[in-house]
Amino acid sequence: MAVGDVTMPQMHAVKGVKIGSAEAYVRYQNRRDLVIFEFSEGTHVAGVFTQNAFCAAPVHISKAHLEVTNPRYLVINTGNANAGTGKMGMINAQAACAKLAELASVQEVEVLPFSTGVIGEQLPIDRLVTGLQPALDSLKAEAWLDAATGIMTTDTTPKGASEQFELDGVTYSMTGISKGAGMIRPNMATMLSYVATDAPISRDLVQQLLNNAVNVSFNRITVDGDTSTNDSCIFAATGQAGGSEITSQTDARYAVVEDVLTRVMKRLAQLIIRDGEGATKFITIAVEGGGNTQECCDVAYSIAHSPLVKTAIFASDPNWGRILAAIGYAGVPNLDVEHIQVWLGDVQICKDGGAATDYTEEAGAREMSKSEITIRVDLGRGHAQDTVYTCDLSYDYVKINADYRS
Amino acid sequence: MAVGDVTMPQMHAVKGVKIGSAEAYVRYQNRRDLVIFEFSEGTHVAGVFTQNAFCAAPVHISKAHLEVTNPRYLVINTGNANAGTGKMGMINAQAACAKLAELASVQEVEVLPFSTGVIGEQLPIDRLVTGLQPALDSLKAEAWLDAATGIMTTDTTPKGASEQFELDGVTYSMTGISKGAGMIRPNMATMLSYVATDAPISRDLVQQLLNNAVNVSFNRITVDGDTSTNDSCIFAATGQAGGSEITSQTDARYAVVEDVLTRVMKRLAQLIIRDGEGATKFITIAVEGGGNTQECCDVAYSIAHSPLVKTAIFASDPNWGRILAAIGYAGVPNLDVEHIQVWLGDVQICKDGGAATDYTEEAGAREMSKSEITIRVDLGRGHAQDTVYTCDLSYDYVKINADYRS
Repeated sequence: MAVGDVTMPQMHAVKGVKIGSAEAYVRYQNRRDLVIFEFSEGTHVAGVFTQNAFCAAPVHISKAHLEVTNPRYLVINTGNANAGTGKMGMINAQAACAKLAELASVQEVEVLPFSTGVIGEQLPIDRLVTGLQPALDSLKAEAWLDAATGIMTTDTTPKGASEQFELDGVTYSMTGISKGAGMIRPNMATMLSYVATDAPISRDLVQQLLNNAVNVSFNRITVDGDTSTNDSCIFAATGQAGGSEITSQTDARYAVVEDVLTRVMKRLAQLIIRDGEGATKFITIAVEGGGNTQECCDVAYSIAHSPLVKTAIFASDPNWGRILAAIGYAGVPNLDVEHIQVWLGDVQICKDGGAATDYTEEAGAREMSKSEITIRVDLGRGHAQDTVYTCDLSYDYVKINADYRS
Repeated sequence: MAVGDVTMPQMHAVKGVKIGSAEAYVRYQNRRDLVIFEFSEGTHVAGVFTQNAFCAAPVHISKAHLEVTNPRYLVINTGNANAGTGKMGMINAQAACAKLAELASVQEVEVLPFSTGVIGEQLPIDRLVTGLQPALDSLKAEAWLDAATGIMTTDTTPKGASEQFELDGVTYSMTGISKGAGMIRPNMATMLSYVATDAPISRDLVQQLLNNAVNVSFNRITVDGDTSTNDSCIFAATGQAGGSEITSQTDARYAVVEDVLTRVMKRLAQLIIRDGEGATKFITIAVEGGGNTQECCDVAYSIAHSPLVKTAIFASDPNWGRILAAIGYAGVPNLDVEHIQVWLGDVQICKDGGAATDYTEEAGAREMSKSEITIRVDLGRGHAQDTVYTCDLSYDYVKINADYRS
């Protein structure tokens, strides 16, 4: 069960974006497991991808295609990650692009492939290809919910965010979806996320906006510390709602778009944590007073990845010593613990490196019993800060991952 | 339940070492939770300690005392870690040393304190001190099993190793104990381990032997990646079995002692993994073909810490894609996956970065169903190698750590 509010908002259609889906039986029957995005001509597309050295075949191909063209189509399957599949995996991912290009009368390099699911098994390319024409036949603007549902794996809920905003009297939409619940510690991107707007933005700025937004959203979440082989995040600006193209950061409209995109991507990233495998708590870890951003992140991830902290939070046990231990082994050089303060919600649990004198077990337990928990750490050695989002470690995480392939 | 053979061997008495224990009710009633070691005059003692910045009060004091003296006594309590306890924690640890020194007529700096248990609560020093005289009264040479039992926390079994060896016609004993089951990813030492020999070794060499042995034993195990605040490992050479002192590595006897110590400490370290919290499998991760030792360790720990790999092994599921993913995000620079081979036991699962063509799910499942599993990775980029030991992640790990304080 996802934590907190994960309801889908009204998913505003984005002018210039159409979505189709089909049942291709990649792994399971009777579910839409193949999704296609179509972008209107002239759409500017940017992507960020996993830094896992074992990155999947479709990641290799999407990166290569993005370098030479502005893609017109995305083809996404769930059920099989097409990772660890060697040369045959590359051939299969290319075959999916080639067949879709042929059916849609575009070039093969104008199609980007994406896969998610089990690693190490060959993609059933014949079944996937059979689903392409039905998916194309179903293309329409109002299908974002279908897309969000079609790319799910162990997700328990589809994930979407959508806003409308105005620039110089023109109304634009920004709509996106994401998926992912386990193998989540994105590095440059999440499992899979697609965001589109019909605002007109130059290609360079599309990439820059994406990089900036990813760094404060998908690059700040972790479920289990496992960086996936398939993480991909795509941002597309179709320009189909009109207006002159935004070509510079000094354009006043740039800041508005950046705000909206950051909000949409933070929501999409946090939805992944709220639906983290086995999650019962949504945990915000805010570290301040750091010498630099990196050490704030190191401390935040050290806490976020500690199985002992995660199980204590699952048990609503204010076992704050485990938080101190995780801070202590984060690898921050010359860390002086006597300057460290730690809060659980509004309750100070650690003062100057020791137990806060007015701390009571009851106050700690009250904070820990909430489903949304904030751990705040002040390192007392500078002015840098950063925030990471994670979830707890429950019996169900083990159950889901011990059972996933069956 | 511990994995494999964890039986205590015959624990040979070490001449010059006496052990006492008592019920001090540090946390639980009706258990011996206080252990004292007495070393004969002239014993050479070396220690290695946690690198956690939040290291516990007794770690601070043990390190300080070791720098200025050869300790005569160790005082160890379980039930309370005396970590995250600020100035009061230091005062309490010193009080334990002072009281024992008074009762035993030695200097305070000749006593090293050790604590293990819950972090962040003050040590009940009055109860602890009350137990010192009964513990002293019980001192005897044949009490290694009592000591191993007395220092347990969530351990399900006492852990010991013991050998006898001969140097120049003299028979010596090497006997040690360890404890720890969770918060285990030692960095310089394990939770707590004490090894003693009655061989005569100079103090410099005692420290060097300890450093070398720790690096291939306690520094190569992980249960959950959580480096404790209290890790301490002590090696004492009493010299009480006679013979001339070993003062140089070129002494032929040095190599014999090093062999014995390494074997004893590897056994003590691996016992901690066999008794890892919730462990159902003992996992050896051997990485070879690395450019240097560090990258072999990085890959091995990346696999060893992946919750997805650990849960797959718990489920006996040969989901080897998760192993590839963990190799891929280990951070090895310019890793060329096409040179990577991976074996599960004798079964090659990954050849040149893709699925091994003759791999079958049945062969993988057969290996995974064993209780002792070896994952072997060849990075194909050099001649370095290293090995790390870990266990799986089960429901019981979550249960133990969600319930620990209750």
